[in-house]
Amino acid sequence: MTDCLFCKIAEGKIPAKIEFQDELAVAFQDINPQAPVHIIIIPRKHIATVLDIKSDDFGIMGYLYGVASKIAENKGLIDDGFRLVANCGRSAGQEIQHIHIHILGGRQFGWPPG
Amino acid sequence: MTDCLFCKIAEGKIPAKIEFQDELAVAFQDINPQAPVHIIIIPRKHIATVLDIKSDDFGIMGYLYGVASKIAENKGLIDDGFRLVANCGRSAGQEIQHIHIHILGGRQFGWPPG
Repeated sequence: MTDCLFCKIAEGKIPAKIEFQDELAVAFQDINPQAPVHIIIIPRKHIATVLDIKSDDFGIMGYLYGVASKIAENKGLIDDGFRLVANCGRSAGQEIQHIHIHILGGRQFGWPPG
Repeated sequence: MTDCLFCKIAEGKIPAKIEFQDELAVAFQDINPQAPVHIIIIPRKHIATVLDIKSDDFGIMGYLYGVASKIAENKGLIDDGFRLVANCGRSAGQEIQHIHIHILGGRQFGWPPG
């Protein structure tokens, strides 16, 4: 997607503080962090929202949890834990139409989750 | 897992308000809802936390997003959206050691997510 901010970050065309990348996924720091650790994990494949995930995408979507675990290890979140959040649509505040998972850690999280 | 509350719900041994079930996943209403729609999605397979997901589990974990989309459709959340949350460990408030995704909808959600 030529007009997608996250596709451009994944392609290295827009700078970001990259925390992880491989052939399937990219993770980078959120520019407006809500916790001491706040990283966005995306698939390289452009999928707009959770509602656009096809059965062929289940493997890559599950793989993003594996990336989250690697980030948790790299950032020292294994013992205390972390929260994963995926927003879909306007009520949840999804701003970029490229599916992404927020991993937040380094502090205590309240409930409800927003 | 004989001592796992969510395994028992998945097996029908403990009652819950089931919203969806098939051979891979079960979804049921959260007993302490934080939004007009608040449903918990679990894999039938017992996986304790995000950190315990193995590569063989990526497909089933991705499939849970497919279940989330079905629930969003059933509950009328397609237009306005929803939030998906997975807590891992104590700082995030994971209370049951069987991996689960909260789907919340029917209201506006704030940021940060808890």
